[in-house]
Amino acid sequence: MNLHNSIHNAIQVRRDEYTRLLQAWVRDVTLSGQEAVHQNKIHELYRSLGLDTDMWEIDVESLRDNPLFNSHREDFTGSPNIVGIWRGEGGGRSLILNGHVDVVPEGDHDQWQLAPYSGEVIDGCLYGRGVTDMKGGNLASYIAVATLKELGIRLKGDVILQSVIEEEAGGAGTLACLERGYRADAALIPEPTEQKIFPRQQGSRWFRLRVAGIKAHGGTRYEGVSALEKSVSVIQAIQRLEVERNAALDDPLYEGVPIPLPINIGRIQGGDWPSSVPDEITLEGRIGIGPGETVAQAEAELTQAMAALADVDSWFLEHPVEIEWFGACWQPGGIGLDNPLVEMLTTAFRDVHGKEPQVQASPWGTDGGLMTQYGIPALVFGPGITRLAHFPNEHIRLDDVFAVAEIMALTMIQWCQAVE
Amino acid sequence: MNLHNSIHNAIQVRRDEYTRLLQAWVRDVTLSGQEAVHQNKIHELYRSLGLDTDMWEIDVESLRDNPLFNSHREDFTGSPNIVGIWRGEGGGRSLILNGHVDVVPEGDHDQWQLAPYSGEVIDGCLYGRGVTDMKGGNLASYIAVATLKELGIRLKGDVILQSVIEEEAGGAGTLACLERGYRADAALIPEPTEQKIFPRQQGSRWFRLRVAGIKAHGGTRYEGVSALEKSVSVIQAIQRLEVERNAALDDPLYEGVPIPLPINIGRIQGGDWPSSVPDEITLEGRIGIGPGETVAQAEAELTQAMAALADVDSWFLEHPVEIEWFGACWQPGGIGLDNPLVEMLTTAFRDVHGKEPQVQASPWGTDGGLMTQYGIPALVFGPGITRLAHFPNEHIRLDDVFAVAEIMALTMIQWCQAVE
Repeated sequence: MNLHNSIHNAIQVRRDEYTRLLQAWVRDVTLSGQEAVHQNKIHELYRSLGLDTDMWEIDVESLRDNPLFNSHREDFTGSPNIVGIWRGEGGGRSLILNGHVDVVPEGDHDQWQLAPYSGEVIDGCLYGRGVTDMKGGNLASYIAVATLKELGIRLKGDVILQSVIEEEAGGAGTLACLERGYRADAALIPEPTEQKIFPRQQGSRWFRLRVAGIKAHGGTRYEGVSALEKSVSVIQAIQRLEVERNAALDDPLYEGVPIPLPINIGRIQGGDWPSSVPDEITLEGRIGIGPGETVAQAEAELTQAMAALADVDSWFLEHPVEIEWFGACWQPGGIGLDNPLVEMLTTAFRDVHGKEPQVQASPWGTDGGLMTQYGIPALVFGPGITRLAHFPNEHIRLDDVFAVAEIMALTMIQWCQAVE
Repeated sequence: MNLHNSIHNAIQVRRDEYTRLLQAWVRDVTLSGQEAVHQNKIHELYRSLGLDTDMWEIDVESLRDNPLFNSHREDFTGSPNIVGIWRGEGGGRSLILNGHVDVVPEGDHDQWQLAPYSGEVIDGCLYGRGVTDMKGGNLASYIAVATLKELGIRLKGDVILQSVIEEEAGGAGTLACLERGYRADAALIPEPTEQKIFPRQQGSRWFRLRVAGIKAHGGTRYEGVSALEKSVSVIQAIQRLEVERNAALDDPLYEGVPIPLPINIGRIQGGDWPSSVPDEITLEGRIGIGPGETVAQAEAELTQAMAALADVDSWFLEHPVEIEWFGACWQPGGIGLDNPLVEMLTTAFRDVHGKEPQVQASPWGTDGGLMTQYGIPALVFGPGITRLAHFPNEHIRLDDVFAVAEIMALTMIQWCQAVE
């Protein structure tokens, strides 16, 4: 029996056990600020694998001056980070397996067919908030390490498991790992890619635009200036900017993607009375940041597009659109297509699935962007169903979790090199 | 000394007394549901003038089936209506002097330089919520009647003073007066026209539009449909409808008015996350209703414009814009330009001010629209400053109140005919 079969069988034998583990993880409600119970379990698991562990609460003061720090939290008490290191024998490449435990709020319970944190299994799928994004991926990382250790395989390079907080709200957990000195030759992040390989990740930046008008009674609306009518110009300028930015993009990984770098306006709000002219409209959105550009460059392009409105409508000369960069910021990032990790992962995928993987650029950011900023090539590949992330009835196919675990184990053997 | 001078002098002698009266009225906070204290004072005043009075609380059941009834209230306890009749000697035309006592909320106190209900007088102007809309006008009506009675003038026709509730929220007070049987040959309503004569009044109808989309992650926004992008089409269709409706309008009273019948979108709200595609946008606005059309006709035109969106964008075929007619509805209305009341008011204006009045159509509705529906020609003419209605720092020039009182008294002598 070859090594691949051994790994496969070792995982399949424990399917029920791993399924129960994922059920328990999903039932741990790990909304921001509520991660401690779950992280304590992870800490125990890492220790039972014999990993060197490090569990700590982030000191906000140590990160505050870091330009990549982006969090609304003043205090991370009750939200520990955990790192577990499987020390290699020496002479091999090191690999970070990074995953976040925080989940986004479950939203309107009426839209869930099961309770949001049920962990129920139906037709081979496990249901619950956070199972696709990304506790299923985290389980795959855990299984990969546990299986290799169970089979007595030793690696030359270190494997660094990271169970981090705050990915959904700015990446403070991964940033803290980086600042604490955890580095490696590459990172693999099993976010929900549906087993597509994403060597590049789009970053994104949230913006808030305030468009001004002049209030008036609706019956004499010509005495005012409608901030909504001006907002239509703003929306159209954003649409034009999106077209321009995407036309300028030349990356084969985006082939066939209708809008590689979307600018999305997700919220609009303004006016307070049906028969008054609205004097302020607020628009909130996100601008996608290409793997080849910086956050600052994308910010500058949106700022310039808003300033250019004054060229065609003098209103904006006196009342420029106010831009606020708020909330989330995901750094773009990635790994060179010639990095051997891409080929190794591709080979492992082929061995497991008997077909070629899809290789694309991700349409959203992950903590891999932060890794890239610190010089660590980062690749995203995981089992979850992309469109279910952040949505009601989130679920994951268990077969996908186990397949990814297998692929990760095979890749680690190549990347970190098994001791003969 | 002629009659005009007598009226003028009788008013001027009591300037301070009337000013204090208006101060007291403004300090009565008459938000919807809180009118009783103020109305009891008005009742006392009407009785002290020797009028036959009628004070009652509206029975909501008696109005519920009336197609013109429009109120969110289930109960009018604590909000009495008052009518005071100055019976004529017989053989003259009757006149209703109608004014509402309810005021709109004062809004953000920080935007007021004085306390919202201060009643303070600065540089000849009296400040406070409701003084322009329309306690100043109500005082003018009261002074006009009080002055004629003080001078011993007797009229042939009845003068019917109406101090009503709920104009700001749909006109239930005036509708109740009409249903209680109070009718006259004409009505004069001293809403804040800045002493322009408005023989015609625009009606208006509030609408709420719901525009649908399909949710998606902002990074793959092409997988969804933005309700905001669809809303831009809706806004543009409304702009086109406004142009068409105004192009079709042929009324000399609207000469020089940039947009005689505005369609105003006053509120917009939709989406819940910057990086999600919004799947519903709500727009709220008001459509102006021409003096020559019905509310139903205007509703039909907006409905048709929304339906026509499907002709250019098949999205709207499957997801038509939902229209809800909610909140306020003011009936359009007016009086024939050949009605002698217009000429009499014009003559009185000329006598008091020594110049010609401006005669226009009003850009907003009043309870005069309801009068018109019951066959009572209604004319709007009053002392307040139009643009201050519903706004912070609302105030009125006291000289204007006294001038309008004079004009109303002179007009009543002509219309109701003084006994020789």
